[in-house]
Parts: sequence; structure tokens; C-alpha cells
Amino acid sequence: MKSKSRKVAIVGSGMVGSSCAYSMVNQAICDEIMMIDRTYDRAMAQALDLSHCMDFTGTRTKVYAGTSSDCAGMDVVILTAGANPKPGQSRLDVLDAAAVITKDIVTEIMAGGFDGIFVIAANPVDIVTYMVWKISGLPRHRVIGTGTSIDSSRLKTLLSEVFTIDPRSVNGYALGEHGESQFVAWSHVTIGGKPVLQIIEQHRERFSTLDLEDIARKTKDAGWEIFTRKGSTHFGIGSALAYITRSILNDEHKIIAVSAILDGEYGQSGVCAGAPAIIGRGGIQELLELNLSAEESKKLEASCSIIRRGIESLHLEEKV
Amino acid sequence: MKSKSRKVAIVGSGMVGSSCAYSMVNQAICDEIMMIDRTYDRAMAQALDLSHCMDFTGTRTKVYAGTSSDCAGMDVVILTAGANPKPGQSRLDVLDAAAVITKDIVTEIMAGGFDGIFVIAANPVDIVTYMVWKISGLPRHRVIGTGTSIDSSRLKTLLSEVFTIDPRSVNGYALGEHGESQFVAWSHVTIGGKPVLQIIEQHRERFSTLDLEDIARKTKDAGWEIFTRKGSTHFGIGSALAYITRSILNDEHKIIAVSAILDGEYGQSGVCAGAPAIIGRGGIQELLELNLSAEESKKLEASCSIIRRGIESLHLEEKV
Amino acid sequence: MKSKSRKVAIVGSGMVGSSCAYSMVNQAICDEIMMIDRTYDRAMAQALDLSHCMDFTGTRTKVYAGTSSDCAGMDVVILTAGANPKPGQSRLDVLDAAAVITKDIVTEIMAGGFDGIFVIAANPVDIVTYMVWKISGLPRHRVIGTGTSIDSSRLKTLLSEVFTIDPRSVNGYALGEHGESQFVAWSHVTIGGKPVLQIIEQHRERFSTLDLEDIARKTKDAGWEIFTRKGSTHFGIGSALAYITRSILNDEHKIIAVSAILDGEYGQSGVCAGAPAIIGRGGIQELLELNLSAEESKKLEASCSIIRRGIESLHLEEKV
Amino acid sequence: MKSKSRKVAIVGSGMVGSSCAYSMVNQAICDEIMMIDRTYDRAMAQALDLSHCMDFTGTRTKVYAGTSSDCAGMDVVILTAGANPKPGQSRLDVLDAAAVITKDIVTEIMAGGFDGIFVIAANPVDIVTYMVWKISGLPRHRVIGTGTSIDSSRLKTLLSEVFTIDPRSVNGYALGEHGESQFVAWSHVTIGGKPVLQIIEQHRERFSTLDLEDIARKTKDAGWEIFTRKGSTHFGIGSALAYITRSILNDEHKIIAVSAILDGEYGQSGVCAGAPAIIGRGGIQELLELNLSAEESKKLEASCSIIRRGIESLHLEEKV
Repeated sequence: MKSKSRKVAIVGSGMVGSSCAYSMVNQAICDEIMMIDRTYDRAMAQALDLSHCMDFTGTRTKVYAGTSSDCAGMDVVILTAGANPKPGQSRLDVLDAAAVITKDIVTEIMAGGFDGIFVIAANPVDIVTYMVWKISGLPRHRVIGTGTSIDSSRLKTLLSEVFTIDPRSVNGYALGEHGESQFVAWSHVTIGGKPVLQIIEQHRERFSTLDLEDIARKTKDAGWEIFTRKGSTHFGIGSALAYITRSILNDEHKIIAVSAILDGEYGQSGVCAGAPAIIGRGGIQELLELNLSAEESKKLEASCSIIRRGIESLHLEEKV
Repeated sequence: MKSKSRKVAIVGSGMVGSSCAYSMVNQAICDEIMMIDRTYDRAMAQALDLSHCMDFTGTRTKVYAGTSSDCAGMDVVILTAGANPKPGQSRLDVLDAAAVITKDIVTEIMAGGFDGIFVIAANPVDIVTYMVWKISGLPRHRVIGTGTSIDSSRLKTLLSEVFTIDPRSVNGYALGEHGESQFVAWSHVTIGGKPVLQIIEQHRERFSTLDLEDIARKTKDAGWEIFTRKGSTHFGIGSALAYITRSILNDEHKIIAVSAILDGEYGQSGVCAGAPAIIGRGGIQELLELNLSAEESKKLEASCSIIRRGIESLHLEEKV
Repeated sequence: MKSKSRKVAIVGSGMVGSSCAYSMVNQAICDEIMMIDRTYDRAMAQALDLSHCMDFTGTRTKVYAGTSSDCAGMDVVILTAGANPKPGQSRLDVLDAAAVITKDIVTEIMAGGFDGIFVIAANPVDIVTYMVWKISGLPRHRVIGTGTSIDSSRLKTLLSEVFTIDPRSVNGYALGEHGESQFVAWSHVTIGGKPVLQIIEQHRERFSTLDLEDIARKTKDAGWEIFTRKGSTHFGIGSALAYITRSILNDEHKIIAVSAILDGEYGQSGVCAGAPAIIGRGGIQELLELNLSAEESKKLEASCSIIRRGIESLHLEEKV
Repeated sequence: MKSKSRKVAIVGSGMVGSSCAYSMVNQAICDEIMMIDRTYDRAMAQALDLSHCMDFTGTRTKVYAGTSSDCAGMDVVILTAGANPKPGQSRLDVLDAAAVITKDIVTEIMAGGFDGIFVIAANPVDIVTYMVWKISGLPRHRVIGTGTSIDSSRLKTLLSEVFTIDPRSVNGYALGEHGESQFVAWSHVTIGGKPVLQIIEQHRERFSTLDLEDIARKTKDAGWEIFTRKGSTHFGIGSALAYITRSILNDEHKIIAVSAILDGEYGQSGVCAGAPAIIGRGGIQELLELNLSAEESKKLEASCSIIRRGIESLHLEEKV
């Protein structure tokens, strides 16, 4: 029987990368994980630490250290290495540092013969995803950013608490930039398939203190709430990476709000932003275009403009 | 540490009951399963067979045989014992036989001191669920029929194939009777949160051959398609039972279309029919009332009338 | 990304085959399952019934019906179709019927271009496994019978009850024929790594009523205990099949007592019998030769002789 | 249905505590996790980050922040808060700092009305476990240190690599101190139930380069190898904690090498050391006494002496 080992490389063996690996080990999402880091010793230490879990988790994943040049046989390369935002900095502030790091890594990975799918969590994720697309030369459906997947999950967690409902019975998306200009598409938030706006309308008294803007703000700020208290956010985003990767490896065709390079969808092009996409073995199989309200459409346009300005500031055409 | 063992009794150790138990063993849904059958030897044999799985499944569930009088400490009693419909018979035809069986079993269970939640799969499930409620004297939220949960699952499976989407990214319900008069609430079928009617409308060419009535018919007939070919359906319904039970035991608050005793919801009373409900440790925590279209409302009313006639034909008031 | 779908065909869609499929669906062991049966409608019905579980199990396995000629791309073919023993008949009695069925099926599968691994549960399993090897012409390490895997599991379940220990902390094997002549290799039964014979010796009073011969007999008879009460055994053996298949597909290298074609191991050749083997992507990677006691060695020899006589009675050399 | 929520508190929300929580969330080991930290904000941030995983993991665990006084209803309290060893320091060096921290925390927990089981990972774990026992006043079977569970897992991982075997088919223990004086009980290391010493003896050529002392040294040093490269070890130990906790909550009766307060077992008393124990709802249900070789017995005695000296240096009798 020929090998059908599912192989994932994780570039960046810090908190996000290693949390993602830990989640994948716990859930038996793939057969091999290669940890990569500019500090090889750190990658090795993470691999070693993770390899000691197998006896306890009942799963069997080979975890080892490697380098960006070793990604030829990988099905998915997860990119977490970047320049982390510091308190006071916006995600866009760290853009220039990120650009340099990303270019080096992606060039090395592609030179090594990689021919799979990129999943990117490095921030500012929408812009870095766009960069990886340009630098790698891969078709756009094979370059996926975590985008607003984590924000959407936070939204669902908040709603599941307010309405006392399993998060999997809640559907909804934060769209646009994984950053300040994101917004919740309330027109498409449903609980058990019923629009949440209808639920609130029909039960005004019961939900009289419910403030959707407050929930949208908490959704957006959740990352910073965590970041300011412990210096990083890694469990939620690590799980998002594992979830997207599983949908690719198992060809699940789950619909997830990811950062996708747009080419006409939602009237946007030349930009990468959070939008619901069908995720399978081919990467983004197709984007799901929601019929946003007029107000939401404006917000999406505004958010895309902000991301586009970030992309343009990089002058990628000259560099790539 | 005091015992928090989660205990489930399954009454009826035939194909449905044992498949449900097997699924629960595979998924480690509870700590103990008591198999019950009017033929004690069959319950014992199922328990023994199931107990040999532990080494392979990596889970640890004690499975043993018992009787209806032993249910005092059970958290959930699953009722699968009934009179199976034969080809040519409608589900209502078997009503009288079911009534006798159900009364005996439930009386015995309650006499034994049971104080948990009933989950019922015995057919005709809507009527049997209503009977169990009346006979047991339990509050209505603690008596749950599988109802259209399995039909809804079949609907999602069919749609996931047509649209090539993970079934968990599809939401939708078959409502009303688990039987001929059921219908799909197309107004609330969504894919990734987007109404399926909108998707079809916007992609007319692509879905030009898609026939929703055909899908609704296949949803309704799937059980018979299976039944006529192998003499029973048990894997789908066994999984539905396990799923509902898990949502109870873990207090998940998942929204599932189950057969619920209605008391004003959807304008119906004195009847038990398939409707989306929030399932948690208390049983049905609350019903979710969808804003059905006028046509769907009529269908629900018609379906409830049919179930109500079945219930009335039993003259339960005189018997209980 | 090229497809790495893990594909399993199950020949025989009766109780054992469908239970195995159900377990694999519940545990997400592979990506595709093809159900095969001489009655195509039955295979189709099982596939349909199983496909309705996905919404509930949270896994995603495509289940569909096929024929023996469609196995070219399969990684594993599980063989459950056979002639079931009837009460009063020994497993060897059904040999001739089994021979005809097996030859037809395996010839068809190989003609279709199959190039993977056979896992066989059809009885008498040791002899059928040998036949499959001869007929298929595959290397012996790619033909695996369930053998005493299920008996070993029953042994561990019994011991886990007697000693109140998790079955995974018990190790032990029934060896030889999956039938009357099997025996427990007590010299290698350990609890937490400690020989069970030592434990009993050191705690004579505590275990004064413990009768190892009784446990060995119950191990051997468990199948019949179940069979006589419900007409088949399928959950334990279905789980064993799923377990062996997972160890192959994930290249786990678990050690499992399977029916292996011996070529010098344990001093035996030209026979197929239950012995511990390392199971990985290559099938049987290697056999583990235990240092059996003199008495156990004799029992193994006797058991192999019985199997060998069964094989010889088939006159395979003339037929294949 | 009365609540059977399984509740775990984790004291210390750093790398070890949060990794343990993440593993438990991924594996759905309990219903509620309370994160505790002397910096309340850190506990809150970890809880928030972890709560965003649910949408991705498919599990449902409530994670929230609390304080040591809130542990009354907890089934298990996991203690990870301690004084981390620094390079150059031995685990015993940090003893005094640990003593102060531990006394405060445990006193507060007990004052709050805790009546469950302690699982301790804080280092030096054998001594801290002993301290927790003395301070808490709980029976010894309800105070469990991770001890050599992680070392044993490392041993199995190493052996699984050398012999290319699934770690679950390897059994073996590192015993004694979770520290320098630990040792591997080679007399009881088995692969598929066969003593590893026999395997090596019978295949001298094949394993001619195999150096058991090297493996024992790597087992012992693995923690430091990781620690010196990334500043902490948390995935392996987090998984060990989750594994022990699951065996308690599910009453699994798994045999795990934990740090147990000895009262005559192995000829030792007044000390706490790594030894195989049966772990269930009652905590340590019983210790498994291996028949160690003379050399191993000496090593255990020596290791216990070292731990005992550490304990005595604390003058607990005067302090508690």
C-alpha cells in the first residue's frame, strides 16, 4: 500500500504554531507534523515536547523539526511566523517587518518544491495572505488566511452564552479585515437556522438589554482583551488553524470565514479579506457570496479599502 | 469523589437499540448502558457483544443487561421497543400493538422509580412519545421523540451531496410527523447561513435540474428505501438517539428537530410533532418557533391533525 | 493537493460488515467505504443507512455501494462474506461452502486490479485467510485474518472485570485457531506490565476463587454464548476489523493477535494461525515470537495441526 | 436530571496549566474548567482564549476564571503553580520557594471546602505532593503527583521509535523520583507483552547498537533537553495531567506511574515516589507492586532516600 501520510509543516514554532500542533496531535488530524523555526532548537524542543503526548492522547502523529526547504512533500504549510503586534501598535504597524520575514520564508518554501496549500495566521493576516499569494505564484484558491475565522468563532461563543445555545447551533460571520474594520454580518446570523434579528424582534422584552453593537465590539476586541492580559493569543487561533487544515486534508467542504483573495466576489478585486468559503482538498473550493444588507456592503467595501491600502503600501509589484 | 456516572438504559435490544448502544460505546457518550429486552437473553447477548469492543474502541463504557424495573438511577431511558411496521403497513397501522407494549413498559419503568428523561424512537414515534408522556406523568420537557431528527439528517445529507458541502454547514428541518405528512421547511434551509432558496435563485442555470420537491420526497422516503432493501433501518436512527442523548448528558443545548409535546407553540396543543428544540440536561429546554411561510404553516397544521387523530384513536384518557 | 483518500471496501454487507462500517464511520477511520454484497440492494441499503449518520457523528465518510470488481483503488478490502456456522456445526463444518464463496470473490477482486491489503473475518477465519493468500497470490504479509484478536479482546475484557482494571492496562493473547483448539498464553498475560501469574501467586487468598481455566473457557466460548442468544456476533468482531484497519491506514504499528500465514515462526509453516503481529501500512510488518512455555508450545502445535488438516482437506493446490 | 457536571480546577494558569486545559478541551474530558492564577487577569485571559476553541473542536467545555476559595464543588484540583527550576538549579533547589506557595494555595483550597482529588504537577513534584497530602489532611489515595508518568511516556516514545512500535503496545515505567535519581525498571518493560530484555537477547545482531543505558538517560534528560531549548516543558506534562484526570473522572482504572504516598509498598514509608498505580474515581485505587530486580530495588531505595531528605528538610511537622 503506497503511503498516504498526511503531512503538515508549521512555520513558526512559537505559541501559535505549537498550540496548533498540540491541537492537531490531540485530534489526530494528520500523520506527520514538521515544526520549523528560525531558531532550529526551538522547533526541535517543540517537536520533542509534542512527541511525549502520544502515550496519553491515544493518537499517533510523528512530530519532528525541519526547515523551510524541506516542504516539498507537505500537503499543507501553516504560516505563523511573523512580527507580533505590540500594545499600542495596530496590526498594520507591523506590516513592514512582516513583509521581509514572509518574503524570505515563502521564497525558501517554494524553492524547495512545495506544491500544496498555504494556511496563514501571521498578522496582519489579510495582507500577509495576499503577499504569500503574490510571492508563491500559486493559484489563489491554494492560499488561505485564517482571517475572520477566529472572530466568527468568538462571535458564536458570545452568542452561545447570551442565548444559552451550543455554538454549533449558531451560525454567523465577522467579515472583512481581521482587525479594526471588521464587522458582523447580522443579516446572516442564525440560531438553529432562524435569523437572530427575528428572534430578538419577537422577544423584545426578554432581550431588552441585549446590545448587538456591544457583542460586535466584544467580538472584535476579544483578541486584544486576551493579548493585554497574557501577552499573546494562541489557543483559539491554534484551533482555527487545525480546523481549516482538517477541512482541507479530509476534503470536508466545511464553510468557514477565511481570508480569501477576491477576484470579483462581493465586487472586490486585488484584495484579500474575510469571507465565507468552502474549504476542501483543493483549498478554497468556492466562495459563498452572502446577500449583505446595504449597510453591511458598505462596511465590507470600507474594510477592503483599508486592507487594499496596506497591500499597496508594500509596493509588491516592484518587489516580487 | 461521589459518583457522577452517566447512565443510560435502552429498552429494546434489537437492531435500533443495539446500534444506538454501539454508537455510544464508540463515542464514549456515557459511563453505563443497561440493555433491556423482553427476551432477557437477547439483552444479555447484546451487552456481552458490546463489552468486547472496549479494547478496540479505546473507550470505557460498562454495558450490562437489566429490566424495566431497574431504571431508578438512569439519567436517560431510550425507548426503541415497539411494533415494527411491515411493508404495506403505514406507521399508524401498527398503533394498537405499540400502545399495549408502550403502556406495559412505561408503567414498569415508572414503578421502578425512574426520574430522568425519556428519549423515544419506537414508531409511530410522535404518537408513542405522546403516550409515554401521558402514561409516565412526567413534565412534557422530559419526554422527547426522535421525530424528524432523522429525516432532517437525511435532508442535510442529500443537500450536502447536491451542493458538495459538509452536512454540518447545512441547516434545515423536516417538520411535523415522522411519516407521510412531514414536510421540509425550505424557508429556513440554509447553507453556510445563506438561504438555499436564494442560492438557487441566484444560480438558476447551475441548479436548473435541481428539484426541491424531489429532495423532499427522497428525504421522506429514505427510510422506506432502506427498509424495503434490508428489513430495518437502524444506523441513522441509532446515531440520532446517541446524538440527542449526548446533548442531554453534556447539557450541550444543541438545536435538534425532535418530536415534542406542543402546548401552544406553532398554534398547536394536545399533539406531539417534529419541531426544532434546544436539548440539554433538562430535556427540551425550549422550542424554537420558526416563522414558517403560509404554505409551510398549513402543512404543519395538516400534519399535526393527522398525528392528533392517531392519538385520539387510542382513547388514552380512558386508559391511563 | 493530490488525493490521499483512504478507501476501504467491505465485502459482505450483513451484520459483521455493516457493524464494522458503522464503527469506522463513528471513529472517522477512513474517507471512503464501499459496501459490497451479492445482493446489491442490501449493500445499497446499508450505504444509505450509514450515510445518514454523518450529521450526528460529526465525521465525514463517503459510504456507497459497489462490486467486487471495483476494488482497484482500495487500500484495504475487508472480507466478511462467508458461510456462517449454525448451532451444532463447528467452524470447520462450514468449510466447503466457504471455499466456493471465497474463491469467487477473491478472484473477482484480484481481476479488478486490487493491490492493497486483505483483512478477513469470514469463518473459519484461519483457513479462509490461508485460502485468500493462495488465491490472491499476494505476499503473505498483505493477507491478515482477524484470528484470535477478538478472543484476546474477550480475554482482556474478562480480566479487566476480575481485576477491576482498564482493559488497555491488561495485555494478553489467545493464540492458535479462532476456534475450539485456541488457548490463552498465560505466560505472557500482564497487568500493568506485571505477569498475572505472579499477581495471583502473591495474593493467593484474595484470588483464591479465581480459576484461570474458567476464564480461558469463557474466552473461547464467548462467541457461542452470544451466537446462541441472538443469532450472530458482530459488534466485537466489527470493532476488531475497524481496529486492525486503522492500524494499517495510519501505519500505527500496533501489536495485535491476528491470523497470520506462518513461514517458520513458532516452528510452523504452511498454516495460518493467531499470533501477535505488528500491523502497519505494509500489513503484517513482522510477527512477534513469544517464548511460550513448553505446555503452551504443545497447544500451539496441536492447534496448528487442526487448522492444517482443514487447509489440506480443501486440496487448494489442485484448485488454485 | 440532576447535574453530573465534571468539574476541574487548574491552579496556575501558565504554560503547563493552560496546556493541560487545552488538551482537556480538545478531548472533551470534563464539563467545566476553572482557571486559577495569582494574577487573576492571566486566568481570565486563558479562559477567554480557551473558550474560543469550542466552535473548532466540536466539544463543549465551559472555561472560566476563579480563585482558590472557589474549589468546593470541584471533582479534581490540578496544581501546576510552583517555582520553576532555572538552568543550573536542581529540582530540589527550588524547594523552599515551592513550599511557601504550596502551603498558601492548599490551605485556601481546603478552607473553601474542597473535597475531591488533588493532581499535582508542580515541581519538585514528589515533595510537593507529599506536602499537599500533609497540608490538606486528605487520605493519601486522594493526593496524586504526576511523578514519573511523563518520564514513562518519554521512555515509551523512545522505545516506540527504536522498535518502530505503537507506544500503546509498549509498556514500561520510570520509577522513583521525577528527577535525577529516577531509573527505568527494565525487568518490566514489555513490547506486546514480551519482555524487552528477551527481545534484545534473542536478536543480538539486530540490536547490537542498542544501548539501554542511553535510552534511560535520554528518558531522564528529555525534560531538560526541551527546557534548555524553549524555556519550559508543557505539552507532554499537560497531556499527562489530562490523562490522569480522565482516568479519575471516568473511573477508568488505568495503571499509570504516578507519584504516590507510600505506606509500606516497596518497603517504603513516609515518602512520595513514582510507582505504578490504578487510577479511578477514588484517586489511587491501589498501587501495583512490581517484583523489581535486586538492582532496581536498590535504585528505588536510593531514590526514595533522596526524596525523603528533601521532605525532611522542610520540617513539615513543625509547620503544618
